[in-house]
Amino acid sequence: MIIIGEKISVIAKKVREAMNARDPKPIQELADVQWKAGAHFIDVNIGPAEEKGEDLMKWMVESIQAKVHAPLCLDTTNSSALEAGLKAHNNQWGRALINSTSNDPERFVMLELAAKHNAQIIALTVGKGGLPADAEERCAIAADMMGRAAEYGVPLEDMFLDPLILQVCTTQDQAMHSIKAIKMFQELNDPPMKTVVGLSNISNGVPKQMRGLIDRVYLTLLMYEGLTAAIMNPLDKELMDTLKTTDVFLGKTLYAHSYLEM
Amino acid sequence: MIIIGEKISVIAKKVREAMNARDPKPIQELADVQWKAGAHFIDVNIGPAEEKGEDLMKWMVESIQAKVHAPLCLDTTNSSALEAGLKAHNNQWGRALINSTSNDPERFVMLELAAKHNAQIIALTVGKGGLPADAEERCAIAADMMGRAAEYGVPLEDMFLDPLILQVCTTQDQAMHSIKAIKMFQELNDPPMKTVVGLSNISNGVPKQMRGLIDRVYLTLLMYEGLTAAIMNPLDKELMDTLKTTDVFLGKTLYAHSYLEM
Repeated sequence: MIIIGEKISVIAKKVREAMNARDPKPIQELADVQWKAGAHFIDVNIGPAEEKGEDLMKWMVESIQAKVHAPLCLDTTNSSALEAGLKAHNNQWGRALINSTSNDPERFVMLELAAKHNAQIIALTVGKGGLPADAEERCAIAADMMGRAAEYGVPLEDMFLDPLILQVCTTQDQAMHSIKAIKMFQELNDPPMKTVVGLSNISNGVPKQMRGLIDRVYLTLLMYEGLTAAIMNPLDKELMDTLKTTDVFLGKTLYAHSYLEM
Repeated sequence: MIIIGEKISVIAKKVREAMNARDPKPIQELADVQWKAGAHFIDVNIGPAEEKGEDLMKWMVESIQAKVHAPLCLDTTNSSALEAGLKAHNNQWGRALINSTSNDPERFVMLELAAKHNAQIIALTVGKGGLPADAEERCAIAADMMGRAAEYGVPLEDMFLDPLILQVCTTQDQAMHSIKAIKMFQELNDPPMKTVVGLSNISNGVPKQMRGLIDRVYLTLLMYEGLTAAIMNPLDKELMDTLKTTDVFLGKTLYAHSYLEM
């Protein structure tokens, strides 16, 4: 399982303040602890960043990679900011991941940038028409986007299909549709398509003390159906322990009494 | 999910002492707390009970059902003791469950007793030839036992197929074979065959502090493939919370912020 550490986000006050003050320390520390906890990518969510987005993303990428030798997942709807980040990204530590394109023509520019800068890309299976109704609709959108990727010169092995996780508390049946979509996405190509989710979306709106439990159980089910990657919190030890235990059952980790410490 | 509360077992010192002293209190209390925690059956494991087994099982059944109006899962290899328990069992609170028969001819007497006393039965998919190698072998044994049940007059809807859970720490690949067997068992009949596991077997031999985690993740995977029942500890709140959360994802419980309290 590829873990994309989610903690560097404009939503967090501490991160937002550090961004505004261009203070690299808190951001570098968050990158470092996630990396040490097992993250394979560090997500860098600067939000829409309409003002000075280019400068901000460039600074974020350089600051983080000065501290942590990891590839980054660049998370913004501002395509100029994204491109500035891609240019600054040090591919020596792995190729960048773009978060995200969708089936909305306004987002196709992200595919162009992926091809131009040799980056990988997350493709949310949602179009202009609103939320997908079920796994089949997610697959139809995915197939569309795979065609679009080819058009833009993005190889399918560089694309992570995202079924769009919705909150279980208001759209309960969508939770199972997304699990089924993870299974079905893989069958859209050979070798199988890669998949990704924004895990904590499942527990949005749920009382805080129940969120961890809901995320853990859902992650186990997604992994069972073959999930490739998750944007998640690698600092949540219970979540990481669940991930490692699921990998034991899936035969991806050899059991040893010490497997939780690895 | 049908929960079979596992706490009344000869393996527990407190239970063994109460059995020997014919002191109903500790046993009744254990039955009561499991019942209140959500158990649908109370397992009564008196072990081989070679001496005075009949008297012991009769006393256990009467003592427990005097306190708790639940059906019991009678767990002994002693067929006379089993029959004494079946005779004493009050079917007003639900039909008894026999734990268990297997494909070993010495255990076929349990099928005879199930038919005679209108009880349900757990069928372990293991024969004289040793442990099953994979899901397919478990299915072959299950099919054999379904034929045997028909021979003895036990309806298939009264049979719970048990894939035999082995400990993950020494036989890691068997964990997935048993999950697959749960899925395949259901396809052996229409309506689908019922299934059951002895859950905590999965974490036998694992360091104590990791057992709960392993049981929880495994239960989620088994439930995802359609498990009907589990012999488990309903007093383990984290395990019960995991079960309830899995039921939300499977659409068997409607999400409400209070679903963990139900």
